[in-house]
Parts: sequence; C-alpha cells; structure tokens
Amino acid sequence: MSDPRPLTISKDTQLCISLAGRPGNFGTRFHNFLYAELGLDFVYKAFTTTDLPAAIGGVRALGIRGCAVSMPFKEACIPLLDELTPSAAAIGSVNTIVNDAGYLRAYNTDYLAVQQLIGEYRLTPTTPFALRGSGGMGKAVASAFRDAGFTQGLIVARNEAAGRALAEQCGYRWQAELGETRPPLLVNVTPIGMAGGPEAAQLAFPEAALAAAETVFDVVALPAETPLIRAARVAGKQVISGAEVAALQALEQFVLYTGVRPSAEQVQRAAGFARST
Amino acid sequence: MSDPRPLTISKDTQLCISLAGRPGNFGTRFHNFLYAELGLDFVYKAFTTTDLPAAIGGVRALGIRGCAVSMPFKEACIPLLDELTPSAAAIGSVNTIVNDAGYLRAYNTDYLAVQQLIGEYRLTPTTPFALRGSGGMGKAVASAFRDAGFTQGLIVARNEAAGRALAEQCGYRWQAELGETRPPLLVNVTPIGMAGGPEAAQLAFPEAALAAAETVFDVVALPAETPLIRAARVAGKQVISGAEVAALQALEQFVLYTGVRPSAEQVQRAAGFARST
Repeated sequence: MSDPRPLTISKDTQLCISLAGRPGNFGTRFHNFLYAELGLDFVYKAFTTTDLPAAIGGVRALGIRGCAVSMPFKEACIPLLDELTPSAAAIGSVNTIVNDAGYLRAYNTDYLAVQQLIGEYRLTPTTPFALRGSGGMGKAVASAFRDAGFTQGLIVARNEAAGRALAEQCGYRWQAELGETRPPLLVNVTPIGMAGGPEAAQLAFPEAALAAAETVFDVVALPAETPLIRAARVAGKQVISGAEVAALQALEQFVLYTGVRPSAEQVQRAAGFARST
Repeated sequence: MSDPRPLTISKDTQLCISLAGRPGNFGTRFHNFLYAELGLDFVYKAFTTTDLPAAIGGVRALGIRGCAVSMPFKEACIPLLDELTPSAAAIGSVNTIVNDAGYLRAYNTDYLAVQQLIGEYRLTPTTPFALRGSGGMGKAVASAFRDAGFTQGLIVARNEAAGRALAEQCGYRWQAELGETRPPLLVNVTPIGMAGGPEAAQLAFPEAALAAAETVFDVVALPAETPLIRAARVAGKQVISGAEVAALQALEQFVLYTGVRPSAEQVQRAAGFARST
C-alpha cells in the first residue's frame, strides 16, 4: 500500500506522541495516515525515555497535544498528571494523556476499546469467563467486563498477589492455573503468543479449554493472528483479536486528540496501513 | 512553489524543534524541505513555551535531536545545558542545541553565519563600521566582526549599560546615537524595519549616513527587503540582508543536527520555499 501524503508541517501543526519502553510503529503510522486522509494539521511520532517526569514535563511545556502511554509507564505517569477519568482512576492505569493548555487529563482507551468490542460481538454478561493475566492491561480488560455487567469472572494469574487484588477489585475469583475449569469465554491478557517474545509459539490456554470454549479473545496485537487466535479460528470459535483492540483504542485516542471521528472504512484502511510494515 | 513531499514518519524518525516566544515558519519549512530533498528521516516543528526549564528537560528526556533557540530564550537557556562552544560562551547567547544521547551542546550559528558573510562579501577588517543594537543578536554579530579582525567598531545603542558592555567586550567604542559619524560599513541589529513591528517603516540609520556608506548590512530577516536594504540598494550600495543570515544560520543548524551539508542550490531553493508563505 502506498504511503499517504502528509500535510506540510508548520508552526501551527499540532504534535501528538507516544511514550513506550520499546516503541512500535503502529500508532505513528495509524495517526499520520488519518491526519493525511482527513486533512488535519497534526503530526505523530513515537518516543521512548529514561526520564518519565521530564518527558511528561516536556509534553506540558511544549504544548504537545496528546501522549499515548505504553509499558512500562502506564502506572508511573499517574502522579505527573492533573486529572484522571473515573475509569482510568479505578483501573489505576493510563494509556492516553490529553493536553489542554498545560492541563493534563488522562484516559484509558484500552478499557473503552474492550467495552466497545463486548458490545459489537454481543457477549452476554451472564457468560462465565476466564481472564489470564494481572498486569496493567489485565486491569483495564477485567474492569471493562465488570462494568459491562459480567459477574462470573475467573482471574488466572501465577502472580498471586496481583491476581487476588485484581479479582477482589472486580468481584471475581482467582486461581493460579485454569485447571479443569471450562468457561465458554477465554480472554488472554498475558504476552503469551506475542511476536518476538519468549512464549511466541505458545497458547495462553490448554487445548482442552479451547475446545470447550465458544469465544476466544486475545489482547495480544502482534501478530494479529496469534497461535491462540489461529487455533480458535481453525476450531470454528468466535474470535476477537488484539489487532481489533489496538485499532479501536488508537481510534479513541485519535478522537480525543483531534475532536474528529473518522469513518469505519477510514479506520480500517488506517489500521491496515499501520500493520503493513 | 509546490510543497515537498515529506517522508513517512516512523518511530525512528528524528525530531528537531525550535523554541521561540513568537514562533515563525521559516525554520519549520526550511528544514522539512531539505529533509525531503535529501531523503533524511527527520521532522521539524516550531514550538513556544511558558516553562523553559521543562521544555529543555523535555528535549533531553524525549531525545529530541536538535533545538533552535530564539528570543527571549537565548540567554535563559544557558544554565540548562551541558556545554557551550567557546564562541557561544563568549557571546553569552545560544541559538542552537544539539542533543547527543541526553548531552546538550550549544552553539551560536548566527555568529557562524555572520562570519561566513564577512568572508563571502570580502569585507576588510580595516573598515570602520557602526553596529546599531546591543541585544543577544547584537552580541553575536559584534563578536563575529571582532573575531574576523575588525578593530574600528562603534556600537550605537540607546541602552547605555548594554551598549557600553558590548563595546567593552569587543574593544569597540560606544555612542547612544550615530551623530555625525559616517563609517563606510553600517550594520543594523535592532528590530527597526521588521515587518509587523512598531518601527516597520523606519530606517535604522539616518539617510546622510546611508549616503556616505559603501556597505549596508541589515540583520532583520522579515521582510527580506527592509526599508534600509531597499534604500541602500536604490543608492547603489553593497547590501547584505538578514534573509542571508537567516538562511545561513539555519543551514549551519541543519548540518549540526543531521551531519549532512546540502548544496548551495538546495539551500537556495529551501530558503525560497521557507519564505514563500
């Protein structure tokens, strides 16, 4: 796919950035594609930092309009901000900062994206589910399920302290391993299956659990087809991929930064372009 | 002139910025034009700030490669940096910061540009000259003349303290007004003649002084043809314009940031493009 033509940058062009321990290219390509497509005078670029307070101070002092926050900064940035949305505060994890004339308001658009996907795929709140993981993203996903009315949740996490805390926060149960539980909805929020990671070839859930499930939701976005998603698809299950979460959460960031909501078709093309490196 | 096509921005694209009280568009357009022309993975944007220490901290923490510094930050930024070139230190004024892995080294490319112009126009060090102005830019220009061997300088400045200090630093004389002095070289480093300023239509030197001069050097860059430059050109004098200083100093910044020196023809097109808004 050919690159979109960015606008000429001027002093009035607004800059949005991301901060991540290991920056990727998805956000930079996704946002810049849509800026060009919609004729918006914005430019986007991913950054990393070894000094988070100074980097956030720079966002404020330079009037950088928006800042996406990824691992390992999603919790550490909180004391540096002016206001959190209630959901971000409840999750205790931020992935989006909007700068209004030096006032930094923080959101969790992963939470917003998962809420939307629950609706789009018509997942029903009476469905029992197991969610594997207990990190910052696990909190966002579990909170989205809880706030969508899901009551029968099981948090599966080897880290007992984090797993129990998350389960308690959402009114769910905790187990270190899935064991013999066979819920109809499986949700992976660990890095298992992530490209380039140590567990890239592994499944987050045992094959027997996969066979018994109706829906598999994998939050890992790279590759779009993780081993778990591929196995679920082959087995004829309903699947929800991390690529969908990534595109939706980036879309919500886009809307927060620019005030403009692109069409579903534009978002699809932007996400396709962003994944095409 | 049609806009150059910028490269697609990725996480690896290097950002250069400027900090100014009232940002203009020259630098943004000049640098981005040459990045596109030379296929360099850089992007440039002008900023302002109300919190200089946090802005410079952000340059460092975000790994912003280069930062041009304009009024009113040229002196205030000095305590925030790691190292000054000897000429910048002597002038006490910085207009360029280069960031090498968090180490901020500062330059004064106005000084470098004026030095080059003295050479290009073959101004001879025995020529008596009057320099009107005593601000940060005045220091850079006077220092460039002194370091080029000019000994017969007169600093004309209504601000006696600043004027005397600058004259003393360079071994020149000071007067509040030009009076009856008629030097062959006149140099304006005040905002007189600047577009949009309160003295946009005025001449920095009396017409009689202009008539007696051989060379007129106006550091005001906007418009490229100030009333002083226009009057000197009509009178058949040799003229050196602020537009030349602006382009040369931006070129030196470009070389410091990227390590690449564009051709004179590319610089000319970039400067033309940068002025064409």
